[in-house]
Amino acid sequence: MRLVVIGGVAAGLSAASRARRLDPSLHITVFEKSPHISYGACGLPYFIEGQVRSLDQLRVYTPEYFARERNIQVRTNSEVIAISHARRELTLHGGERVPYDKLVISTGARRDLPLQDNLFKLDTWDDAERLQAFLQQRKPKRAAILGGGYIGLEVAEALRAQGLAVEIHQRSNDLLRRQDPWLTALLAKHLERCRVTIHWNSTAAPGADLVILAAGMKPNTKLAADAGIELGRTGAIRVSERMETNLHGVYAAGDCAETTHLVSGRPVWMPLGTTANKMGRVAGAAATGARERFPGIVGTSIVRVCGLGVGLTGFSEAQARREGFDPIATSVQALDKNRYFRGKPVHVQLVADRRTGRLLGGAVVGEDNVAGRANVIATALHQRISVEDFANLDLAYAPPFATVWDPLLIAAQQLDKLLH
Amino acid sequence: MRLVVIGGVAAGLSAASRARRLDPSLHITVFEKSPHISYGACGLPYFIEGQVRSLDQLRVYTPEYFARERNIQVRTNSEVIAISHARRELTLHGGERVPYDKLVISTGARRDLPLQDNLFKLDTWDDAERLQAFLQQRKPKRAAILGGGYIGLEVAEALRAQGLAVEIHQRSNDLLRRQDPWLTALLAKHLERCRVTIHWNSTAAPGADLVILAAGMKPNTKLAADAGIELGRTGAIRVSERMETNLHGVYAAGDCAETTHLVSGRPVWMPLGTTANKMGRVAGAAATGARERFPGIVGTSIVRVCGLGVGLTGFSEAQARREGFDPIATSVQALDKNRYFRGKPVHVQLVADRRTGRLLGGAVVGEDNVAGRANVIATALHQRISVEDFANLDLAYAPPFATVWDPLLIAAQQLDKLLH
Repeated sequence: MRLVVIGGVAAGLSAASRARRLDPSLHITVFEKSPHISYGACGLPYFIEGQVRSLDQLRVYTPEYFARERNIQVRTNSEVIAISHARRELTLHGGERVPYDKLVISTGARRDLPLQDNLFKLDTWDDAERLQAFLQQRKPKRAAILGGGYIGLEVAEALRAQGLAVEIHQRSNDLLRRQDPWLTALLAKHLERCRVTIHWNSTAAPGADLVILAAGMKPNTKLAADAGIELGRTGAIRVSERMETNLHGVYAAGDCAETTHLVSGRPVWMPLGTTANKMGRVAGAAATGARERFPGIVGTSIVRVCGLGVGLTGFSEAQARREGFDPIATSVQALDKNRYFRGKPVHVQLVADRRTGRLLGGAVVGEDNVAGRANVIATALHQRISVEDFANLDLAYAPPFATVWDPLLIAAQQLDKLLH
Repeated sequence: MRLVVIGGVAAGLSAASRARRLDPSLHITVFEKSPHISYGACGLPYFIEGQVRSLDQLRVYTPEYFARERNIQVRTNSEVIAISHARRELTLHGGERVPYDKLVISTGARRDLPLQDNLFKLDTWDDAERLQAFLQQRKPKRAAILGGGYIGLEVAEALRAQGLAVEIHQRSNDLLRRQDPWLTALLAKHLERCRVTIHWNSTAAPGADLVILAAGMKPNTKLAADAGIELGRTGAIRVSERMETNLHGVYAAGDCAETTHLVSGRPVWMPLGTTANKMGRVAGAAATGARERFPGIVGTSIVRVCGLGVGLTGFSEAQARREGFDPIATSVQALDKNRYFRGKPVHVQLVADRRTGRLLGGAVVGEDNVAGRANVIATALHQRISVEDFANLDLAYAPPFATVWDPLLIAAQQLDKLLH
């Protein structure tokens, strides 16, 4: 049995590794079109910022490691240009044909970058090398970032840390794609304090020495679609809970695939490293016949914005309304620890459905302990908790760690009151 | 209508405040036997340590504040010595009779301290003042702590910070009452590194200049029991989800009352400030006729042990076995962040039921982000999650905050494997 994996970053290598662990006899080959595999792409902004000294620090494993330790053949600089499922065969750039029995597609996402000397993106190892070289050689003074999603904000922080003047051009009037005026106002104010200028409803950046394209990410599905693999309504590859596509024995995982949003029960495309790894694991297991499943996500993400942690999960109020809920939201600001332990303000927003009292989403913004609090909301969302039950959560308290009424519980009490 | 509350710290004042908010016309009086009300008793070890400069920093509100802002009369130095529910009347020390219509009992917990010059406890404001005076005036060199529960460990850290030689005498061979050899070994090793000596199976402390009694805490129920109020099998006052005792119109809340452990469904007595506040709120609401409920706890606690965070929730393996489960446990050690963000090791232990695959408990030990991770487990326990679903939680990831596979998920994957 031959398992072939297309794509050698998060999802692809998770799939290959999981398959190997479950089936020592499988022949496993991974094709990666670029020269680089197995690196933490989420760390690229911190390379530009300087926290990561060398891209090598982001590398997890080498092709040699995979060959030696996991008996997985990894071929870099090898682009798959066609899949013929009828013949169970791939065609590589250059013409080589490669047979498979099982196939995992993890072609990721893409951003179309017009060829232009001072225009960059920051999605891959090569992108980071090119941007870094430009920064060192050309010493640009003014950077414009197109897009106010998490990559845009991470790059803004990185370039500010490098001393550049930074402006963000956002085509909407919203940050982080939450359609959340509360969150956008909070972040805009903070960005202003960090001297990042935001231009709303703007797609052009005249006069910048350097432009970063941080908008327009799309699932990279052309190869799959050309092979007759069905896409979902999100535009990404439609998969089952076992990551199988409409073609038997062909799986998709990672940024090229859609999944289920467990709060709405509907398909969603949200390309993130954690999800890619989980999907990859399940795809790899499925390729060996094991019956693992990946039920979906609740839409959790976190981003550091000029030192401020921003954790988001579930739906914002506007998103929830668009999904057919009757949402109500509230937010509180409270200290995350007692004053004598130098507690810092944390903002918590919770969203619930008026009809059912069910929690639908939340946001946590602050300097400390943001991930932990966002994760509590995320965990509750997985289980379709009510706001009333959320307000009774038995959360840990001791003065070095929290306040006796955690800001999460204060927000839940306030929201529960609004629901009655 | 007259609401009388016995006890002026966490539960009692939460009850009084909640009742006032729901019913502006109620006459509310709180009796507190000591001179001090409304202070964060959980902060007392940090006063001894020096992080809290003055006990006043632990005070939340004064009796004058309650009178002025909430129309609640608070009488300090007023001990209730008898309840006659037939006459709806209390008797105070000194003989004064006080009528009530509704009564909230929040008499807390107690520790019986034999009268001895160098013997201390650290449960109340007065305890802290007395201990602090002794430390300053007598400059003791060697302290012995009787008890290896969370107060014992907090006091150990505090006295080490003050430069004393510290030994802990623990009557069992177990720390933090988890019957968990893994946890005990981890903490014992850490305490040794902090030069805290532990004497196992020991109840005596010969030769110490100073002895702290940090064992033998009991619910303070004599007043209630004498009035015919039923105690549960834990020894604490039995209450409904609305905090009502067996006497109609008499509620109990806080450290004197038991609650339900939501993992086992059985009564539990676990005196902690967070629970006391939540119970108090519900008791106060019930006293006004409002139908709020406090379903119970999952046994969450957190303690800092010489700089190390220790978050516990649900049951340890031995506790789960005693509760009738067929438990299996696993633990992992992993970095809590990527190396380039100076990730520190965190230990995660998870416990599950072999028969059902359900998560039963967990422990998180590390320097950073311990509360957040313990709270994720606690939130999952509230919802009776399976280990398989826990392993699929959509937790937040970005390099400044976590690793792409959170240690919680790594532990869950490992435990899931053991279950199959």
